[in-house]
Amino acid sequence: MPLLRRTLHLVSDSTGETVLAAVTAAASQYPALQPETRLHPFVRNMTAVETALSAMADSPGAVFYTVADSRIRQALREGIARLGLPACDVLAPVFDLLGSIGVGEPAERPGRQYRVDRSYLDRVAAIEFAIAQDDGIAPDRLMAADVILIGVSRTSKTPTCIYLGYQGIRAANLPLVPGAEPPPALMAAREAGVPVIGLTASPQRLAQIRQQRLNGLDTRAAPDYADLDRIREEVTEARMFFERHAIPVIDVTRRSIEETAAQIRQMIARRTPAARGPHS
Amino acid sequence: MPLLRRTLHLVSDSTGETVLAAVTAAASQYPALQPETRLHPFVRNMTAVETALSAMADSPGAVFYTVADSRIRQALREGIARLGLPACDVLAPVFDLLGSIGVGEPAERPGRQYRVDRSYLDRVAAIEFAIAQDDGIAPDRLMAADVILIGVSRTSKTPTCIYLGYQGIRAANLPLVPGAEPPPALMAAREAGVPVIGLTASPQRLAQIRQQRLNGLDTRAAPDYADLDRIREEVTEARMFFERHAIPVIDVTRRSIEETAAQIRQMIARRTPAARGPHS
Repeated sequence: MPLLRRTLHLVSDSTGETVLAAVTAAASQYPALQPETRLHPFVRNMTAVETALSAMADSPGAVFYTVADSRIRQALREGIARLGLPACDVLAPVFDLLGSIGVGEPAERPGRQYRVDRSYLDRVAAIEFAIAQDDGIAPDRLMAADVILIGVSRTSKTPTCIYLGYQGIRAANLPLVPGAEPPPALMAAREAGVPVIGLTASPQRLAQIRQQRLNGLDTRAAPDYADLDRIREEVTEARMFFERHAIPVIDVTRRSIEETAAQIRQMIARRTPAARGPHS
Repeated sequence: MPLLRRTLHLVSDSTGETVLAAVTAAASQYPALQPETRLHPFVRNMTAVETALSAMADSPGAVFYTVADSRIRQALREGIARLGLPACDVLAPVFDLLGSIGVGEPAERPGRQYRVDRSYLDRVAAIEFAIAQDDGIAPDRLMAADVILIGVSRTSKTPTCIYLGYQGIRAANLPLVPGAEPPPALMAAREAGVPVIGLTASPQRLAQIRQQRLNGLDTRAAPDYADLDRIREEVTEARMFFERHAIPVIDVTRRSIEETAAQIRQMIARRTPAARGPHS
């Protein structure tokens, strides 16, 4: 299949993450498309509009934008029209629908989703919880968690916990070490109502990742750390532990961290209906 | 101002992050709106469509959806119409624009942006880089970084580094300790072309965050860790260091991690034009 190179300009008055997420999701549906993405964040004044427009003049392409201030948006639109480029207002249908359900007038101020308010500070606390917890296992921390992830080494427990932290969920993790029982604090936290979820992956995949780690900078791991037969035993032992304690399991072999995190959110939301959404 | 409560159903065939980002960004513009968000991720078959529809019947509200498969999308639309709920296809304008620039037909397969491919593995490596690096400072790691963040304690260096990791950027961080010169490896990495960015924050803000930390579980910090006068001296010393070495500075006092990360990306992209975008 011949690759179709296209320059895509993404213009935002804030970080550009919303427009990037939307365009990445849609663009990923076109197998032939090879996008050259140019991100223009923090376009909040006429100077920034002019800078973005001159970048578009230099490398013409389709333009996707989200700009809250109507005056800035109008200037941007006119500039794009003068350049004759195809363009769209990414959030237009969302604003149309919100406008139709009687919620007042938009504030037109950029970056309001990133206000450093109470809920933002809660998110930062959740990230720090995941990072600090990773140093070692304090029983009181397990008790304070919204969810505890357990699994053998390299099942992406830590990055998944920190990712959940960015979403405001306090996630703790606990490694399953071959031949050793998990600490009693785990079962105590579980009995107190903290959800525990097991992560697993195919032994082949784990061997591959661990080998990479051994080849890398970290050489503190044991010599049989990446041995496939040993890993098979470890994974089987972990699976038996999950089964014995009726712990729900996610197989992360073909899952990205984002997908694993979404599945975890769904699992803990189901236990405590409507209590965990970012706005509820 | 009276708060307007509205139930917002977000339906996705993948993690729901795209539709959540779009609706959160737009909804944050309505100061009176108090959204009750109900996320329905992984809606990939007719059973999941029915589950989402019955949740909507239970708590009616506006529906925002992104579903790649046209058959699933159609069933969802028809169900929403039967319930008489207002709804919108969040990515419609993005697909319309991509369709108009000749990039073929969409694949209609859910979650393609989360494929566990080469670029995904690079992202995981970048996250691990940030996490591993945080243990201590190895000079060869500083040399391998895409960017090095420096600043006094609690200027959000670590969460910002890990967040950049999720975006595929290998970020290292180095604390500035009062009265101590940074290690020679920092200047060596900088001379080798690794960008160094200073983070700072208002002493009041730092005192507040550090006090919180002292009140929390971590009591390893020094007794004058949260003393305002000492923090003022620390911040001044750091600012002088940045100035002496012409290191660009970001003040994170009123910035969220997402905004700081976006600014860092913009700063390092400017140095190496078009080399750092997620698709370039």
